[in-house]
Formats: sequence, C-alpha cells, structure tokens
Amino acid sequence: MAKSKYEYVKSYETDDKILQNCWIIVRIDGKAFHKFTDAHNFDKPNDIRGLNLMNFAAACVMKEFNEIVLSYGQSDEYSFVFHRSANVYNRRASKMMSNVNSLFTSSYVFYWNNWFGEQKLKYPPCFDARIVLYPSDQNLKDYLSWRQADVHINNLYNTCFWNLVLNKGLTNSQAEERLRGTVSSDKNEILFTEFDINYNNLPAIFRKGTILLTKQIKIDEENRTRKMVIPIYDDLIREKFWKEHDELLEKKSPKYYEFPLEEPLPELVRQLLELKYQNEKK
Amino acid sequence: MAKSKYEYVKSYETDDKILQNCWIIVRIDGKAFHKFTDAHNFDKPNDIRGLNLMNFAAACVMKEFNEIVLSYGQSDEYSFVFHRSANVYNRRASKMMSNVNSLFTSSYVFYWNNWFGEQKLKYPPCFDARIVLYPSDQNLKDYLSWRQADVHINNLYNTCFWNLVLNKGLTNSQAEERLRGTVSSDKNEILFTEFDINYNNLPAIFRKGTILLTKQIKIDEENRTRKMVIPIYDDLIREKFWKEHDELLEKKSPKYYEFPLEEPLPELVRQLLELKYQNEKK
Amino acid sequence: MAKSKYEYVKSYETDDKILQNCWIIVRIDGKAFHKFTDAHNFDKPNDIRGLNLMNFAAACVMKEFNEIVLSYGQSDEYSFVFHRSANVYNRRASKMMSNVNSLFTSSYVFYWNNWFGEQKLKYPPCFDARIVLYPSDQNLKDYLSWRQADVHINNLYNTCFWNLVLNKGLTNSQAEERLRGTVSSDKNEILFTEFDINYNNLPAIFRKGTILLTKQIKIDEENRTRKMVIPIYDDLIREKFWKEHDELLEKKSPKYYEFPLEEPLPELVRQLLELKYQNEKK
Amino acid sequence: MAKSKYEYVKSYETDDKILQNCWIIVRIDGKAFHKFTDAHNFDKPNDIRGLNLMNFAAACVMKEFNEIVLSYGQSDEYSFVFHRSANVYNRRASKMMSNVNSLFTSSYVFYWNNWFGEQKLKYPPCFDARIVLYPSDQNLKDYLSWRQADVHINNLYNTCFWNLVLNKGLTNSQAEERLRGTVSSDKNEILFTEFDINYNNLPAIFRKGTILLTKQIKIDEENRTRKMVIPIYDDLIREKFWKEHDELLEKKSPKYYEFPLEEPLPELVRQLLELKYQNEKK
Repeated sequence: MAKSKYEYVKSYETDDKILQNCWIIVRIDGKAFHKFTDAHNFDKPNDIRGLNLMNFAAACVMKEFNEIVLSYGQSDEYSFVFHRSANVYNRRASKMMSNVNSLFTSSYVFYWNNWFGEQKLKYPPCFDARIVLYPSDQNLKDYLSWRQADVHINNLYNTCFWNLVLNKGLTNSQAEERLRGTVSSDKNEILFTEFDINYNNLPAIFRKGTILLTKQIKIDEENRTRKMVIPIYDDLIREKFWKEHDELLEKKSPKYYEFPLEEPLPELVRQLLELKYQNEKK
Repeated sequence: MAKSKYEYVKSYETDDKILQNCWIIVRIDGKAFHKFTDAHNFDKPNDIRGLNLMNFAAACVMKEFNEIVLSYGQSDEYSFVFHRSANVYNRRASKMMSNVNSLFTSSYVFYWNNWFGEQKLKYPPCFDARIVLYPSDQNLKDYLSWRQADVHINNLYNTCFWNLVLNKGLTNSQAEERLRGTVSSDKNEILFTEFDINYNNLPAIFRKGTILLTKQIKIDEENRTRKMVIPIYDDLIREKFWKEHDELLEKKSPKYYEFPLEEPLPELVRQLLELKYQNEKK
Repeated sequence: MAKSKYEYVKSYETDDKILQNCWIIVRIDGKAFHKFTDAHNFDKPNDIRGLNLMNFAAACVMKEFNEIVLSYGQSDEYSFVFHRSANVYNRRASKMMSNVNSLFTSSYVFYWNNWFGEQKLKYPPCFDARIVLYPSDQNLKDYLSWRQADVHINNLYNTCFWNLVLNKGLTNSQAEERLRGTVSSDKNEILFTEFDINYNNLPAIFRKGTILLTKQIKIDEENRTRKMVIPIYDDLIREKFWKEHDELLEKKSPKYYEFPLEEPLPELVRQLLELKYQNEKK
Repeated sequence: MAKSKYEYVKSYETDDKILQNCWIIVRIDGKAFHKFTDAHNFDKPNDIRGLNLMNFAAACVMKEFNEIVLSYGQSDEYSFVFHRSANVYNRRASKMMSNVNSLFTSSYVFYWNNWFGEQKLKYPPCFDARIVLYPSDQNLKDYLSWRQADVHINNLYNTCFWNLVLNKGLTNSQAEERLRGTVSSDKNEILFTEFDINYNNLPAIFRKGTILLTKQIKIDEENRTRKMVIPIYDDLIREKFWKEHDELLEKKSPKYYEFPLEEPLPELVRQLLELKYQNEKK
C-alpha cells in the first residue's frame, strides 16, 4: 500500500493567501430563502425570530474569531469584517471563508429551536459565502453603507408591499403594480395615509439591520464588566458611528459601552449573555 | 440615501471561475473533531453512528448537485468529486465550495438525532473546505487512492492503539510508545496474537472508507428501479473499480447496479431510500 | 539604515504557481502593429522579412527554454507551448511569461537588421503576453487548430483585400465593401478570375503560419546530425501531423527529421543553423 | 475550416484583473546580468552608461503609461509605480506587466548604441517582471525605502569589494574574506583609510539609485515650461521627499519643478528632452 506513490497529488493544492493590509469581508447569503421562509411561515415583511436567529448565529462566529471587529446582518445575509491586520489561518481565503460559513450554518440549525420553539425546522438550510477585499478604511465604510442603504430600500418596499397584500387584500401582482415607479416619499405616504404607519417609528432592527460589536458592558450593580457581543441598530452611514466606535478601525481592545441591561431583557441579549468565548469554552 | 454612491464597492469582487476541463474536488474536514468526538463519546477507534451521519450528510449534498459523480468519506473528512464538465454556478469556486460545505454542515446537524438518538448534540460542529483541481483522469484516481491509502494506515494504527488502551489498559503514551516504529505486518500481528483480531475481517467501512455513487437500483419484486445514492465499501485503488463503474469518468447516466435490498436493511440504506433528489423535493 | 524595518513588504508578493499537469501556452502579440508595419513599409498582405524575424526571435526563445515543445506563429503573434510536465521557474506564471516575452522582444530588436538590412528600425516595438492553460491533449490541439484556422481566414481575406487595393486601385473602403458577405469560395474565385492567383499555390508560410519544432537533422554527407529548431509549414489541424511528430505530446527527445538542407538554403534556415542552444552559448 | 469548432478554447483564458485601490508595482529585473555585464565590460562597481541606459529605457515606459507616477531604478532592476487609481488595460495584470516589460526591454536594446557607442551589444538581454500590490500609502513608501536601503547596502559593499580587487590586487575570494562580518562603519573606514574615498562624496546616482518623476520644467529664458520625465537622485526614505512631491500620492497633474538645465547638460537629461509622449508621437 504505497502511500508515497500517491502523495504527489497534494502538490496540486494552491496557495490562496489573502493580500495583507486589506479589510477582509466574508459575506454569507441564504440559498433559496424565499422558499425557505415560505416553508417555515416567516412573518412578512420581517420575522423577528428569523432575524434574531441570524444575529445569534453571527455572534457565535464572532466569539470564535476575535479578529472580526464588526458584523452586519440584514434579511438572510451577514457580512463579517476581519480587521486588515487579521492573521487567522495565515490569511488563507478558503480556510477563513469555509470556517465562518460552516460555523454560521451549524449555529443556525443548532439554535433554531431557541427562536422558533414548537415550529420545527423542516429541512437543512444552506448559505453560500464569498470573500471581498477592501484596501482602504473608506472602502470598508462604503461597503457597509452599501449594505445598509440596501436594507432601507428593500425594507421600505417590502413594508408597503406586504401591507398592501396582507391588510388591503391586494394580490402580489396588484401590489407590485401599485408600487411600480414610486419613490421613497411616495411609499412613506402610502404607509402613513393608508395604514397609519409612520415608517420611522418601525423597529430599528427592521429599518437599519443589525450591527454586532464586541464591547465591555456593565453586568451588575457593582459596575463589574465583561466582554460581550452586543447588537446595535444604528446608522453606520454617518461618520458619527465611526467616531463613537473608534476602536474598530484601529483594532484596539473592546471599549466600554453603556449598554442598557435592565429587565426585561430582549431575548437576543439574554441569549448573547450566555455565549462563551472561544478560549473560555467547552 | 444615495445607493449608487456606494455601489462601486461591488466592483471589488473578483472572478474566481475554475479552469475548465479539470476534475474539481471539494474536500471538507472537521474542525477540532478530536475534541468534538470526545465531547460526544464517540466509540473508538470508529463510531459507526458518526460515520453513517457523515455518509448521510454527504448523500444530501450529492442529491443537490447532480454533477458530483463520486464522494469519498473517511473519519471526519469527505471529498466530493465534480465531473470535469461540471458547470454549476458557472464554475465559480467560492459558490461551489461554500454551498457544498454549508449544506453538508447543515445536514450533519439537522440529522444528528437520526443517528445519535437520545445523545444530544452539545454544540455546533464546524467543517472547513478547500478546492483542489486535477487535470487528468489518472490524477483523480491517484487523489482518491491517496485518501484511501490514508484510511488504511490510520485505521490500522488506531485499531491497535485503542485495543491497547481499552482492552490492555495501556495509557495513551504507553500505546504510542508500543507502536512507535512498527510497520503494517507488526500491527497485524499485534492485533492477531494479543486481541484475536484478524484485521481483514473488520468491517469494510472502517478499513476502506465509504464511496458514494449514484446508481439505478432494483427496489421491488417487479424489478422496478429508481435512482439512488448508495454506499460502497470497495477498493478504489484497483483498476477493477473504475472498470466496473465506467460511467463515472465519462459522466454517463447512472447505471443499473445489483444492490442487495433484502431486509433487514442497514440503517444508512434505509434512510438513503427516503432522500429526495433536488428536483423532486419540497 | 534599518533594512529589516522595510523588508516586510516582500511578504506582499503572491505565489502564482501554475496548476501542474496542464499544457502552458505563452502567447505574445504585437502592440499596435498596424501602425508599426505602416511605419516600416511592410509588404502587404504579408512581409516575408517580418515573418522570418518573428520566426527567428521565437527560435531564440525555444533555444533558451527546452521545455517548449512547439511554437506557432502567424502575423504579429506567437504561441509557445510548454510541455505539461514543464518545471522551469517552478512553474511561476509571471517568471515564465515575462522571460519568454522579454527574450522574444529583445531578439526581435537585436536581429532586426539581419532581416531588414538597410531599412532601419524607427522606434522600439512592444509585445504583450498572456498565459493560458489547457488540461488535455485535445484542448492543446484545438488551441493550435484555432490559431491556424485564424490564419487561413485572415490571410484569404487580406490577400483579396490587398490585391483589390494594390492591383485594382480600389480604396480601402471599396475593397472592404467588395468583400462584405463573401465566403471562402467567393474569395478564391475573385483571386482566380481577377488576379490569376490560385490561392493554394501561394507560399505555405502565408497560408499555414509557421510551426517551430526541435529536431535532429542531417547536416552533412556523412549523415552526421545535430539538434536544431526547424520551421515547418504544415497543417496541424489534421491528426496526421500529431502522428508524424508523436514525440511532442510525450516529451520524448527530439526525433530525427528528414529536413532538406540543399543549397541555396532559405535565409531563415541558414540563420537558424547559427543559433546556439542555451548550454552551448556565450 | 470550421473556426467555431475550436473557438471554445478562448474560454480557458482567465480574468486577472487587479484589486482596485491598491498601488501596483511592476518590477523588472535583469536575467543573468552578472554574465551580461562581464560580457560587455561594464565598469565596476557601477557603469554610468549602463545606469543611464536603464534610466532612459524606464523613461520610455513612463512616457507610454501616464498612470505611472514614479519609477525607481538601481543596478539591473526597475520598479514602476502605477497610481492606485490606474485603469490602463482595465487593470489586467498580464497586460500591464507584459507591456511594461516588453517596452523596457525593447528600448534597452534599441537605445544601446546611444550609451555604449562603439561597443556593440553582443546578444539580446532579457528581463523578468513581477507585479506586487500595496494597499496603503505607507506600504508604498516602505516598498521604495526597502529598495533604496538595498542600494545603500549593496553599493557600499561593492565599492569596497571592487576597490580591493582593482586597486589593491586582491582576488575575488580574498576581497570577500576581507569584508566578511564588517558593518557599514567598517566599510566606510576601509574606503577612507585605504583608498582615500569619502563614500558620501561618491555620485548620488550610485548611492541613491535613480528616481524618475514627471514634472513641468522651465526650458528657456522666457520661462516657458514643458512636461518631462526627469531623474532625481534623492533620499525617498525621508518624509521630506513625499512632502516636496506631494502630487504623487494624490495623482495630481505634474507640478513645476526647478530643474537646472544649464549647459553642459548631462547626457541623460539631453536625451530625455528628446523623448516624446505617447500622444505626441509617431
């Protein structure tokens, strides 16, 4: 059984080391989630259970990879931002991409019941992944702004669409027809006059997506703190965000953040508090 | 909310189309499975439940991607062979790799209970993935031979090691020491004289790994057939294998295979019979 | 002068090793040669001096890289075929591509006067280069057939075009107009009836391009032989070519070839006889 | 002659577009120039004719590619810095690398006689090329500092070595032995005490290499200016250089530079004044 005779095949593997000093985004994206959300009766236009499961699975990834300085999620996609100085797996693209994607998927399935309770998962969901590199800090900010602008546009549209369908009885085609050619102000007007909805008062998680950051937060009356992944529903297109969280670009240690932990805690935060970091676990 | 201002970031994505007319292997590999198998009390040296779960998850992947002509699994790794003519996702490497890996991971978690029953999954497992290309048919055969030779070497060692530890009471270090420098014949001798084990009589799934192929098999008395992913525990290093399954290299339609379906069916086959193909499902 | 402080920049270089067991084509192509041939009064539609200079420069490259088994040239382009087993520069793409291209360019300028005599080179010409990989022998044959089919189509067109312009006094636009929509047989007919030219009797170097091979040839009456790069103007689309030169695909030693060396020798062959091999020179 | 049958081979070409917003360095390097300089009796340790020919060939490249903001040469190597915003050939790596390398090579051979006069070029020289990317401005400065620190170290060594050999009669091995383990101050001391040479008074072109920049310079008494590639022998490791030439990083238009054009002009400058820009020429 001459092993050596075959080992030459190992030399066909290629080196896919990522260029240094670039921001590394791993973006995962649900495969055929239109069908998946239908099969699992997701609320429309947004299902808070589904979003929280995405956020929780993403936090599991962040706990494992401490060079991820920020993650941003919306709908069935999540972007993980590895710091430009990241060196995990010696920056091999396949290793980084596949581990992030697999751990995310695994966590999504594993924690499904925590969020969907009695409603069983019917079949295994699938996420694809890609890697994109950004040389400058401005590129990185623009990338995230691109994703957040995307949320705004899609969510405003979807909110109108599903209100027309669910609350006005329009068919899908009628709703599409009604919205064709409308601009943002038209849609805001429809929501306000026809459904008494002030779009800006809708939950920020729907309008802004979820930003996950690692922070030091106060966990008790005696002002003891611990490091934790926290969700923030903020506007990262504005420069103010980057000033407030100026440790991100510099890859400094997690900063203290005044995070409200009053009871009753949102379920996502309650579960995030249970998440252990890589070097603490198992 | 000027979307267009940010959309330039999309142009930073790169084209990772795979060279045509090469065999494409996606190999996935369990991350930190030493710890994982300990935490879940896997039988040593081989856990038939764990192997069958790997095989079943791999079959889920094959059902989704009909350009995979063969999969080969051993221990916590699986190799998926896309035919050299494959065109799924326009041969984009990231897409192929991440979808295979995610669906495998997802299925592994989703179907855990089918194989481990009462023993709960304790935390989400993770698999990495890589892509390797092989230009010639001979390269492909050599790759698979490399993996199968690896099973032989590892399994013979592990079988000795765990018998020494579990049945002779040696510590891990003592067992390692005992096996240092031994060749295959020495290990066969140890098994035979000390544990009354004829290595060649051990289950083929342990000694050969599992080959998954898509075949037409007979499913009833009236000789009706259906297409199905089946497990084969054979020697693919020998040319005989490639002659017997000559449709693989040519990417012809699945051939009829005389597969024994007598009761009682092995659990893996029973479950594979339930698996639906991509275009049949949901 | 802290050298070490800056040396980290070296780690930004990437590994561009070419996949093993693939045929490697380096194709070079003249930049802006329309302008170049006008500036240097090349004969139309073909300039034998220019073609021979291309061929000679290509032979200089073949003498330097003995893993090139065949080169094929036409017009202002040349394809160099490195054997699938080639290992020069450890198969680093940049190294292979840039060395071939630079040596070709350098030889083209250096030997210009050998072919153009009194007519001076007016400015430095430039060639670009690319690398293309072909996994199978059939791919390689098809690549070369593609280039040779291209010669046929272009040369038949150009022969008609320039005869109409130079011998019938048509303007360029009139000649283009005349040829629009014509098929091969139409063009053959024009040449025959209007210019008394039987296309198939034109020199093979114009109709077929030039194949360069390394062969053992007889160099004197006593049947002594030597290894030499020789030009062949043959049809490589036919399987007959590959049977006759069956050492190419197998990378065997140069075979004996009955090459006519009677006086008067064509100038290209006379000069090729002077070319020294890498390990003989300087 | 079915062209279409073969055209599929074109689809095997790969897209090698360079990541946007990175500095692109094309570095060319003489192949076997030790042998080449011996064969052409280059002065040791530096041949001013050879350096000026390198500089002139590099200027020819800069005139053709106006996105090159700086070139830096030393010994038989040259680095061409394309601005991070460069878009020539749609940033295809092979195109950029091969055109720069070919035009440099071509110019080196074409202009040889301008610098070496009666001493004929004996055989075609060859240069290899590579591309390296740098995401940040600091990376770029560090790259160039790395090359300039290299000049210092090598030139100090070579100056000592060749003085020992040529003026003290040591053999090459004796000179190597003498210099083994010496640091910079030792070598300065040897030059000063044994050869009466103050290293810092040697020509800057030897000690610093040559920086080529495109500037607006005064060309006559009436203060008329023109755009021109000029040589600068300065210290680019210091921040002062980057402040003085602050148009480089920003890719602004060439700035006015007080460049001395008094007679007698150095030969390099005299010849550079004759060089035409891409859009002016032929």
